[in-house]
Amino acid sequence: MMDEASRKKVLRMVPYGLYLVGVRRREVKDVAKDLNVFVGSWLTQVSFKPPMLVAGFRRDAHSLEMVKESGVFTVNVLGSDQKDLAARFFKDVPVTDKEMAGVPYVRGAHTGAPVLPDTPAHVECEVVHVYEGENDHAVVVAKVVAWEHRREAKPLTHAETGWHYAG
Amino acid sequence: MMDEASRKKVLRMVPYGLYLVGVRRREVKDVAKDLNVFVGSWLTQVSFKPPMLVAGFRRDAHSLEMVKESGVFTVNVLGSDQKDLAARFFKDVPVTDKEMAGVPYVRGAHTGAPVLPDTPAHVECEVVHVYEGENDHAVVVAKVVAWEHRREAKPLTHAETGWHYAG
Repeated sequence: MMDEASRKKVLRMVPYGLYLVGVRRREVKDVAKDLNVFVGSWLTQVSFKPPMLVAGFRRDAHSLEMVKESGVFTVNVLGSDQKDLAARFFKDVPVTDKEMAGVPYVRGAHTGAPVLPDTPAHVECEVVHVYEGENDHAVVVAKVVAWEHRREAKPLTHAETGWHYAG
Repeated sequence: MMDEASRKKVLRMVPYGLYLVGVRRREVKDVAKDLNVFVGSWLTQVSFKPPMLVAGFRRDAHSLEMVKESGVFTVNVLGSDQKDLAARFFKDVPVTDKEMAGVPYVRGAHTGAPVLPDTPAHVECEVVHVYEGENDHAVVVAKVVAWEHRREAKPLTHAETGWHYAG
């Protein structure tokens, strides 16, 4: 039967990870206003050479404006033991010079967007294309220009958290 | 260290499912030439309202030409017990009026692209945007216009198969 409930069931079969996505304004004068980190899930690689990925950014969110302005973002990959860390970033994120939501951060060397060293790995990305049609999340295509793998970890996924962002 | 090996490690932390992606030419005269199914992984939802997704299609593959010509494709979601079924579609796929790679198929009611009823669920999609920049896989943005959830199943993922298509 082609109803909404069955569509949700189908689309929730797609596995998703959970990421802390770091964004910045072009000019960072006041870190509290000009940097942000949010929890994202909609992400897939779309190229090996050069390495590129696609991420979905909510059209109604401030972070998308920041990404379009600065042309950069980071993806901090959460480990399977970091559900609580993820949850800190569901709300408004307080930012000081050294911490976001109470978690240490640095500015990525290549993009200046927030990197969270407590996570096992991250990539820094440069935007090459943004598509906004009828979709309620912008399709952001980006090149992976820098990365760091800090430690082995299983990724945090929807399946483990019981959180769902699909359907 | 920012070498290729560490980039692979980071990008392989992103979880992926495995899908049988069904494509067709605009006109289907000879099913053996005008329909195809291949194994895909790079997929994410990018909109709730309307439901939309993004899929990566190899630029050097015939299937991308078919999708660009017909503007439609299907995504058949594999169950965790269907690794062998997936493997049948890694090579050239023989197509008869009723079977592809020896597996029964039908033509999707909304798109005419191949649907494999042995899989637990599928969606039919209409392409709204294709981005081909430096990326070696085209970014195909599509609306989900039809779907069927046939049975409950855990999805087949890279983690379970030991196959990797990321990095």
